[in-house]
Amino acid sequence: MTGMVTPSGLLAAIEDVGADRRRGGFSRHAFDPAELELREWFVEQAESRGLRVTADRNANLWAWWGEPGDDAIVTGSHLDSVPGGGAFDGPLGVVSALTAVDLLRAKGFVPRRPLAVVVFAEEEGGRFGVPCLGSRLLAGTIDPDRARSLRDPGGVSFAEAMAAAGMRPEHVGRDEEALRRIGKFVELHVEQGRGLVDLDRPVAVASSILAHGRWRFRFSGQGNHAGATLISDRRDPMLPAAQFVLAARRAAAAAEDARATVGRLVPNPGGTNVIASTVDLWLDARSPTDAVTRSVVEELSGLAERFAGEEGCAVEVTEESYGDTVHFQPRLRDELSELLDHAPALPTGAGHDAGILAAEVPTAMLFVRNPTGVSHAPEEFAEADDCTSGAQALARVLEHLSA
Amino acid sequence: MTGMVTPSGLLAAIEDVGADRRRGGFSRHAFDPAELELREWFVEQAESRGLRVTADRNANLWAWWGEPGDDAIVTGSHLDSVPGGGAFDGPLGVVSALTAVDLLRAKGFVPRRPLAVVVFAEEEGGRFGVPCLGSRLLAGTIDPDRARSLRDPGGVSFAEAMAAAGMRPEHVGRDEEALRRIGKFVELHVEQGRGLVDLDRPVAVASSILAHGRWRFRFSGQGNHAGATLISDRRDPMLPAAQFVLAARRAAAAAEDARATVGRLVPNPGGTNVIASTVDLWLDARSPTDAVTRSVVEELSGLAERFAGEEGCAVEVTEESYGDTVHFQPRLRDELSELLDHAPALPTGAGHDAGILAAEVPTAMLFVRNPTGVSHAPEEFAEADDCTSGAQALARVLEHLSA
Repeated sequence: MTGMVTPSGLLAAIEDVGADRRRGGFSRHAFDPAELELREWFVEQAESRGLRVTADRNANLWAWWGEPGDDAIVTGSHLDSVPGGGAFDGPLGVVSALTAVDLLRAKGFVPRRPLAVVVFAEEEGGRFGVPCLGSRLLAGTIDPDRARSLRDPGGVSFAEAMAAAGMRPEHVGRDEEALRRIGKFVELHVEQGRGLVDLDRPVAVASSILAHGRWRFRFSGQGNHAGATLISDRRDPMLPAAQFVLAARRAAAAAEDARATVGRLVPNPGGTNVIASTVDLWLDARSPTDAVTRSVVEELSGLAERFAGEEGCAVEVTEESYGDTVHFQPRLRDELSELLDHAPALPTGAGHDAGILAAEVPTAMLFVRNPTGVSHAPEEFAEADDCTSGAQALARVLEHLSA
Repeated sequence: MTGMVTPSGLLAAIEDVGADRRRGGFSRHAFDPAELELREWFVEQAESRGLRVTADRNANLWAWWGEPGDDAIVTGSHLDSVPGGGAFDGPLGVVSALTAVDLLRAKGFVPRRPLAVVVFAEEEGGRFGVPCLGSRLLAGTIDPDRARSLRDPGGVSFAEAMAAAGMRPEHVGRDEEALRRIGKFVELHVEQGRGLVDLDRPVAVASSILAHGRWRFRFSGQGNHAGATLISDRRDPMLPAAQFVLAARRAAAAAEDARATVGRLVPNPGGTNVIASTVDLWLDARSPTDAVTRSVVEELSGLAERFAGEEGCAVEVTEESYGDTVHFQPRLRDELSELLDHAPALPTGAGHDAGILAAEVPTAMLFVRNPTGVSHAPEEFAEADDCTSGAQALARVLEHLSA
């Protein structure tokens, strides 16, 4: 396979796009210049392979090998990132899909069913707050009006951003035709944990995704002067927000295999010599079961009320997204594991477009080893050889499923 | 005085400049479009009164009544704001100075000493982090190289911003000529507290300013995935940051008349589904004495180390600014109090350019009643009648001092 394009080679081609000098890593969000450049790059890459690219009504891109049609074998992932994210989460699944097409072509394979590579929009929710927005819209699990009115931190709505990028926000929503075309969906992804390191294997299949969601807590007090306001006169929303951060850690530690994180917290107005008038923070909570995740959030909502009340503040909670536990189809999972030299099956704490599609069609995921387990950070990494192993595994899966 | 311009009338003329739709109130920071517009507006207002306007080497504006010369009586304040600040903090002192000039002119007064209205640059430190930057540079209490290299949140340096506004950053620093020209300095300011409300008086003179400063605490951990990272594997800098916020409140409450505030806190990268890799927060700490302020910060620095260590994180502390307690000259304070019908003398927890100049020349402040005491917030307010009383008081002071 001399001169063969590899996943790492393809990733190297986009390593300057959306590099975030301030945060480190990459910031590539739906319809921003970096993400639009990646979309163009994907179209070029797909067309250079003779794939025909179409965009669906929900801003997702589809590159077809063969005539688009029902019951296709679909693979792919996303090109957007979290703010200051790594190079692999998302793009590895896309470049591995393109490499798998190359590998199948090189061996003269001709699929008997249509085969497509998909790029889902705004998987991380890094700009508009709702993760897996493109696949949620496709599957109809988010109301189109709500999606259109989601706003980025600068106040631009999803509808406005989509229109500015030349797409038609009035057409978003459940897309029966696109769904019918997906016979099976397989998403390859860098592992976000050290399961494969511990097992000394390069590739795994996914077993499940935690029940997870995002909640915004807005603590409101009285903005005032940081020097002139007596401690006894304060209603400072930063205080209950800080108590909340600590309570979230305690609640997660106390529940079975749960996680609770506050990674985004915004005091308003945010001046050094100003007592904040409001503090917005986002809780990311997850656990293996809907019941535990819900109970952690309920407990924390109660505590937030108490903490706010003790400081003369108020709190308002908004659920921004939620996804119940996903168990990937056991038959497909076992079939792929056997095909891939008994690849181990691993659960994941991360959400994926595959988790959304699993409610609609038989869906599977492949994970590629991550030496440190770090993800959503500039240090996210996978060895080039492991990425190649991943693409080869994906090629075998596609060959098997579309034969 | 029919048709006379009032402080409130002048404030109404700039009520659209720098209005902050997102935060509420105003965001007017050194050399941003709003602040530059206010500078132009000030020049027009001063020139329409026959005052001659010059800029000094440190971006401060001076409007002269009479020939610029040594030993002048100087009044004024600043036009910049905190992020999302009120309409009065700063601008009230400038418009009251202009109104006082009108009042003196209307009664035919001709000053026997030069009289100047000054607008100091970046008093709030809202863009470059160091408060009273214009007056500190003028007095030489900040190193010019350090000032030039201060950066705003977008990475633009003070030198770059100053040059872009057509000024020469290579010339900033202690300005002996400008200092020699200040015989006495009087700054009028909206009160940032309820002292005058409690005393049922419209105007006070200042007695002292708390010892105060700003410290940046950078907590560093390991950025990672909020769903995939086990609680036991985390090194999340948000945890020690939250503990710090609570400790700051406790430390201030325990010390005599101290204040400690965290109003600005920035997790990096700041994604909802991302464990932060760093959290920057700024401590604003104040008390009546240098010893107490320093000991509060020392205690909190020790606790920050401990909190960070307990989470496997590190912390780095940087002092961004500091000002020791200011006691305004008692003779001048008492002289003005007597002149103003025995106006009460009140201390303030807020920092001011007058506090910087007090180390150089006899300096005084006048405070105008604030019905709620709220400041550094959109709700900041003073009644129009009280503003007029303030301008009248200032006119009497200028007449007295420059006669």
